[in-house]
Amino acid sequence: MDAEQLREHAHKMVDFIADYYKTIESFPVLSQVQPGYLEKLLPDSAPDYPETLEHVLNDVQEKILPGVTHWQSPNYFAYFPSNSSIAGFLGEMLSAGFNIVGFSWITSPAATELETIVLDWLAKALKLPHDFHSTGQGGGVIQGTASEAVLVVLLAARDKILRTVGKDALPKLVTYASDQTHSSLLKACQIGGLNPELCRSLKTDASTNYALSPEVFSEAVSRDIASGLIPFFLCATVGTTSSTAIDPLPELGKIAKFKNIWFHVDAAYAGSACVCPEYRHHLNGVEEADSFNMNAHKWLLTNFDCSLLWVKDRSALIQSLSTNPEYLKNKASQGNMVIDYKDWQIPLGRRFRSLKLWMVMRLYGLEGLRNHTRNHINLAAYFEDLVGQDSRFKVVTPRTFSLVCFRLLPPANTEDTNKLNRDLLDSVNSTGSVFITHTVLSGQFILRFAVGAPLTEQRHVDTAWRILQEKATALLGSL
Amino acid sequence: MDAEQLREHAHKMVDFIADYYKTIESFPVLSQVQPGYLEKLLPDSAPDYPETLEHVLNDVQEKILPGVTHWQSPNYFAYFPSNSSIAGFLGEMLSAGFNIVGFSWITSPAATELETIVLDWLAKALKLPHDFHSTGQGGGVIQGTASEAVLVVLLAARDKILRTVGKDALPKLVTYASDQTHSSLLKACQIGGLNPELCRSLKTDASTNYALSPEVFSEAVSRDIASGLIPFFLCATVGTTSSTAIDPLPELGKIAKFKNIWFHVDAAYAGSACVCPEYRHHLNGVEEADSFNMNAHKWLLTNFDCSLLWVKDRSALIQSLSTNPEYLKNKASQGNMVIDYKDWQIPLGRRFRSLKLWMVMRLYGLEGLRNHTRNHINLAAYFEDLVGQDSRFKVVTPRTFSLVCFRLLPPANTEDTNKLNRDLLDSVNSTGSVFITHTVLSGQFILRFAVGAPLTEQRHVDTAWRILQEKATALLGSL
Repeated sequence: MDAEQLREHAHKMVDFIADYYKTIESFPVLSQVQPGYLEKLLPDSAPDYPETLEHVLNDVQEKILPGVTHWQSPNYFAYFPSNSSIAGFLGEMLSAGFNIVGFSWITSPAATELETIVLDWLAKALKLPHDFHSTGQGGGVIQGTASEAVLVVLLAARDKILRTVGKDALPKLVTYASDQTHSSLLKACQIGGLNPELCRSLKTDASTNYALSPEVFSEAVSRDIASGLIPFFLCATVGTTSSTAIDPLPELGKIAKFKNIWFHVDAAYAGSACVCPEYRHHLNGVEEADSFNMNAHKWLLTNFDCSLLWVKDRSALIQSLSTNPEYLKNKASQGNMVIDYKDWQIPLGRRFRSLKLWMVMRLYGLEGLRNHTRNHINLAAYFEDLVGQDSRFKVVTPRTFSLVCFRLLPPANTEDTNKLNRDLLDSVNSTGSVFITHTVLSGQFILRFAVGAPLTEQRHVDTAWRILQEKATALLGSL
Repeated sequence: MDAEQLREHAHKMVDFIADYYKTIESFPVLSQVQPGYLEKLLPDSAPDYPETLEHVLNDVQEKILPGVTHWQSPNYFAYFPSNSSIAGFLGEMLSAGFNIVGFSWITSPAATELETIVLDWLAKALKLPHDFHSTGQGGGVIQGTASEAVLVVLLAARDKILRTVGKDALPKLVTYASDQTHSSLLKACQIGGLNPELCRSLKTDASTNYALSPEVFSEAVSRDIASGLIPFFLCATVGTTSSTAIDPLPELGKIAKFKNIWFHVDAAYAGSACVCPEYRHHLNGVEEADSFNMNAHKWLLTNFDCSLLWVKDRSALIQSLSTNPEYLKNKASQGNMVIDYKDWQIPLGRRFRSLKLWMVMRLYGLEGLRNHTRNHINLAAYFEDLVGQDSRFKVVTPRTFSLVCFRLLPPANTEDTNKLNRDLLDSVNSTGSVFITHTVLSGQFILRFAVGAPLTEQRHVDTAWRILQEKATALLGSL
């Protein structure tokens, strides 16, 4: 690690990456390679002796890039976005430069303290109740992903209730969420040794726009209690993955509180929009929650990974996740003078991720972040209008944020509308000019158009829509 | 994300980081700030409007750097190392530049396929048995940390045995490891809902150099079976955290196999040295293992995080950790044509971490990696000699890799040798010129001198030893 060689090589890498962004629209947004393509291009063992950076970068260009699906392309409308930004990228660079491992405060006090500070900054920007600020009994922490966020709070809730009812009651614990809830909840239940049959996936439908009904939740809880089971965890979502449905937090939260159920709010995607005053009301009811999660790495210009979790009672997390081996002991930790974030997460080691979030907030400012999400929501509304103007298509759920759920309607002579839409999806994605994904709602195959890549402009939305129309015309003509 | 602005700002960041490395020895290696230092220096809320990069970098220099503990300093001898290198740093940059989220093959085929390929490369370099290669039923995967590696295999083993004995048997499952095993195992047991009282921490002592005795393990298993319990998991360590003890893999593995116990080998730190032919024998017996872990981010020049896990039966992992929601379905996954690494790990999302490992292996070559670890082992042997030449000190366990465990011996008039060594540790670390940590072995407070920072040269070891001697002289004189 010679500083001057680092300088020389890293400058080359900067130019490589800047050139990549300059030419990003020239690549197929969804990689078009076939499974196993890369093993045919690379040797089957590592070299014994050093190769040059030029050689490696050449291979990145010729062999790796064809296998990259370009999440940063302005023509990327799949899943949910994964924002990169100059500030986020610079933060990643600096974090990789320091390469500290911040498991305990002492291993880099700035890493811990900056994380606490920027999580408080964002808690204020989101107008989260004071209980979530670090100044009280709660606080925020950066997790890798929303999957880890829901897992750690599920474990905290599990262990909290087991301390009351006894650990033998583990097989009786019940979790609740709608059938639209992210799959990470069920995975967390499996990891935590909970009975998967007691992870209630409560049915939703179009009548509530796929939001969880408080009545359905309340009835399920009552039924389970009557059966001798122990309800202990509710996960509500603001902005579900399939259709950005919004569960009614105030009503659900009141029931959960009354029944002593841990209430987690997952706003992984939609949380970013809630820094705007005009969208903040979607978080109303979060004051009833025990924990709240949003992913800055999805839609808040912070490079992956940066999932933000706030809890009201940090001691519940720490009781579930703390370790205290001799070789990690130090005066600051032993004296309870500091936060050791290792006790708020699954892994021991942790990167200096707060740097990138801090740089994003400073280099763009809250107004910059607000305009970023507003812009995408406006583009999605624009796309929604385009779809509405073509009678062959239908918008199937109301658009709230930057996701439009729509489908091609069947002509009279078509029986399998789902196949028609699946074919349209494949046909559009195989062009390499646009990438969208799908979901299924009430048995219907639905196309998802998620605006959120930082480079996306109206012209990209126009192009995507033109391709969708053209492919629809071709498909309908061939029936 | 304007390409030219990215170029301009990232070049500035490169210079900032290169200058950091140029001046890294001018900082106290262990941060000397007091808890809460940073909140006094930063505003209590995020700015509404953008600030300049110059302003932010100035704050990094003046406010963040004093709170950084410099893991890359050549005077860092604490815990285990966390290697940064030019190649590793460039790989992180490129990964942050693409900013893809590689949960499924389709989301960037190159990310999945490169990971499979480089894990096979390293499996060959470590001479792991063929069962661990991706060409059979097994394969390798990059986890964030060794904590996650042991957790995912523990879950796979838990669910595998429960499929045989029935899920009601969860409270009867027993895990085994020595009392020197990393704390992440106990944490994994807690996460997985296992009975913490059945996580056997088998006693070791100086007679085996703190390695787990096969007899002790065998007796514990027999006793548990006789009590109606179900042994299912053994974690052995090659290079424990406290003293780099090496559990006898062949003997332990044979017992585990005979008793149908999942056998995991944790070589998080020492695995890196095993790319050298002269150290490979420490892995003998790994052919009996079901899973094997080493951290390329510790001592193999790959920036954090990059923990490598190989399993012989990937289906066991996938059965425990897979999810298949509609919105992630795609032809390649549904057709079982590809690996979806989301099903080999806790989180859903994952960074393109194979890039940095690939670049490290190519830019240094296997010979470069071998010389890197050899150099540190030689420096540790040199330090061991220095300690041996000063009769006031004693090396307390045999040095095998690059860690020296030693202590200051008590003069006749001292009763509390542990306090003496704790005072020596504090005294040395408060100089800011060197950072070492400690452990406790058989009730004795032991100093750990872990060589492993890429910039460390003999002169740094000399300086560290001189400081230790000086502080010892001062302490002994004040008694």
